[in-house]
Amino acid sequence: MTSITAEQMDDLALGAAVLGTGGGGDPHIGKLTARAAMAKHGDVTLIALDDLDDDALVVPAAMMGAPTVMVEKLPRGDEIVHAFEGLQAYLGRTVTAVTPIEAGGLNSTTPFIVAATLGLPLVDADGMGRAFPELQMVSPTLDGIAATPMAIADEKGNSAILTTCDNQWTERIARTMTIQMGGSAFIALYAMSGAQAKKSLIGGSVSLAIRLGATIRKARRDKTDPIDALLAVTGGRRLFHGKITDVQRRTERGFARGEAVFGGLDEDEGAQLTIRFQNENLVALRDGRLVASVPDLITVLDAESGEPITTETLRYGFRVLVVGMPCAPHWRSEGGLALVGPRIFGYDVDYQPI
Amino acid sequence: MTSITAEQMDDLALGAAVLGTGGGGDPHIGKLTARAAMAKHGDVTLIALDDLDDDALVVPAAMMGAPTVMVEKLPRGDEIVHAFEGLQAYLGRTVTAVTPIEAGGLNSTTPFIVAATLGLPLVDADGMGRAFPELQMVSPTLDGIAATPMAIADEKGNSAILTTCDNQWTERIARTMTIQMGGSAFIALYAMSGAQAKKSLIGGSVSLAIRLGATIRKARRDKTDPIDALLAVTGGRRLFHGKITDVQRRTERGFARGEAVFGGLDEDEGAQLTIRFQNENLVALRDGRLVASVPDLITVLDAESGEPITTETLRYGFRVLVVGMPCAPHWRSEGGLALVGPRIFGYDVDYQPI
Repeated sequence: MTSITAEQMDDLALGAAVLGTGGGGDPHIGKLTARAAMAKHGDVTLIALDDLDDDALVVPAAMMGAPTVMVEKLPRGDEIVHAFEGLQAYLGRTVTAVTPIEAGGLNSTTPFIVAATLGLPLVDADGMGRAFPELQMVSPTLDGIAATPMAIADEKGNSAILTTCDNQWTERIARTMTIQMGGSAFIALYAMSGAQAKKSLIGGSVSLAIRLGATIRKARRDKTDPIDALLAVTGGRRLFHGKITDVQRRTERGFARGEAVFGGLDEDEGAQLTIRFQNENLVALRDGRLVASVPDLITVLDAESGEPITTETLRYGFRVLVVGMPCAPHWRSEGGLALVGPRIFGYDVDYQPI
Repeated sequence: MTSITAEQMDDLALGAAVLGTGGGGDPHIGKLTARAAMAKHGDVTLIALDDLDDDALVVPAAMMGAPTVMVEKLPRGDEIVHAFEGLQAYLGRTVTAVTPIEAGGLNSTTPFIVAATLGLPLVDADGMGRAFPELQMVSPTLDGIAATPMAIADEKGNSAILTTCDNQWTERIARTMTIQMGGSAFIALYAMSGAQAKKSLIGGSVSLAIRLGATIRKARRDKTDPIDALLAVTGGRRLFHGKITDVQRRTERGFARGEAVFGGLDEDEGAQLTIRFQNENLVALRDGRLVASVPDLITVLDAESGEPITTETLRYGFRVLVVGMPCAPHWRSEGGLALVGPRIFGYDVDYQPI
């Protein structure tokens, strides 16, 4: 059990942007809202999965929508608390702890708003070990845990408690509601027991994000290479050094979809890398050959500062390093690949682990 | 207080098709489901608005969606009961009585399923005095009664309790959910007190529908003109006698939209009538000149039998009589016309009462 201060949110946001693999929404926006809640209500207590009683009620909190919209439509700050209270009332039980369901991007910070405001401990875990574009793409789905009853709320005062026949239907109905709600909404879902959380969630995600952020920050301060330091922590490797030559991006059916093309520099002179994304970076092709794919993490970093670049901020001319990092072991199982492997996103390639 | 038997559902369905003004879904489909519930659970008790205690909890039950889908995707029969029970649990109160919110079409029969299954009295009233395509288009909206909390359920087991900032948002979010749910869904909404029901609902709608159906049936039996008999009860008039020469119909954003063109016969020889519809018939133009519009009722009837013809069954060659009938007085107010007048549906014409 450890206390997270508003100051540590900088490291968290930086690390979460690395785990966001280009998507998940800009965590720096979420950080501001979370910090405001922590300034008002106090620090957040981080607990380990093992600290949970088996009969605890653990509820993930998140934001849903296209990152391109999320960064333009700022949250009011209390929507997620309304969603959380709505779910709590529906369940007729008091929630014991809140947890991230997505360690990457904006949703690393969303649960901090709930934890601070309602005085609940935050579980050091998540359901992805990164960011993914659809809400059924979480480790609890692998264990048959239902996404619903789920609460959804927007900044205008619209909300709902949703119950669906499976987690794919939750995604389908909630996605269309999110689009109607203006492209983004706040959700509380996958309510589970402490025993289920211990079995199904991916442990240590929050502290990992903070450690990644701190690693980059310290390397910058010490004038060492932040990307080398990052790869040492994650066990990842460099995929490409290059300059962005083309970006195509569209907001389609509630997602930010597109591709970015990079021309090689220095050791990669003469080669070309293409990354295709749906909110998150999905596949990386070097001169047409697959070099990394979901569920492994593909992150684009500023070549100098190591700052992660999200899909919505990719711009012509940026000099970048593209890195690949291994995913949580949950995803390398047959069931894991059937939920989040490259074929699920429409790429007919075999997953090759980094 | 009177008892409605399964046998009377034929008259109700026939009369409701007249009030459906071409839309509202085919009441004969709804009749079968309602009859099955009544055969299992017994007759339904019809009560007048005045029979309600002021603190009664009155809840309308309805089906939402495009009629073109509703007639092809048969209900399982218990979806509306699930929606109703969901709303009851959410409100934490026992419902006193169920009421139609739409007297025309399929939704004249939908509340009978709930009334029979849950043993609740059915209020002889509705919120339209006819059918309208959108859910905010009801008399309770004129009095500021909220559509939400609203329950919505489909046949696959998906459901939600929705809360919105106004009734227009209820329509918007519920419509998109209905489309995701396959084009039709069951809803329970506009929960209100007995005092509110007495002030805001349109009284006598169920018994009017039954009387209209019985009138047509008896005229056919007695070989008198069923359309003359119908117009005597409703205070309406003949608008056109003709043959369908063209029908254009498309399912768009969850609605059946289109227009039908009629070539004149006998007394209307040489003239042409065009009806434009969005689920329901909205405006009737004779040789380009407006002869009737919402909120008044425009119904197409088989010229021989007086059988109402819905927008989804209009076919080339049908010989028909088009009639216009006055709407409930609620709609002729300034507020009423601002909610359901011709301009709301995109027709820049002044309403001329029949």
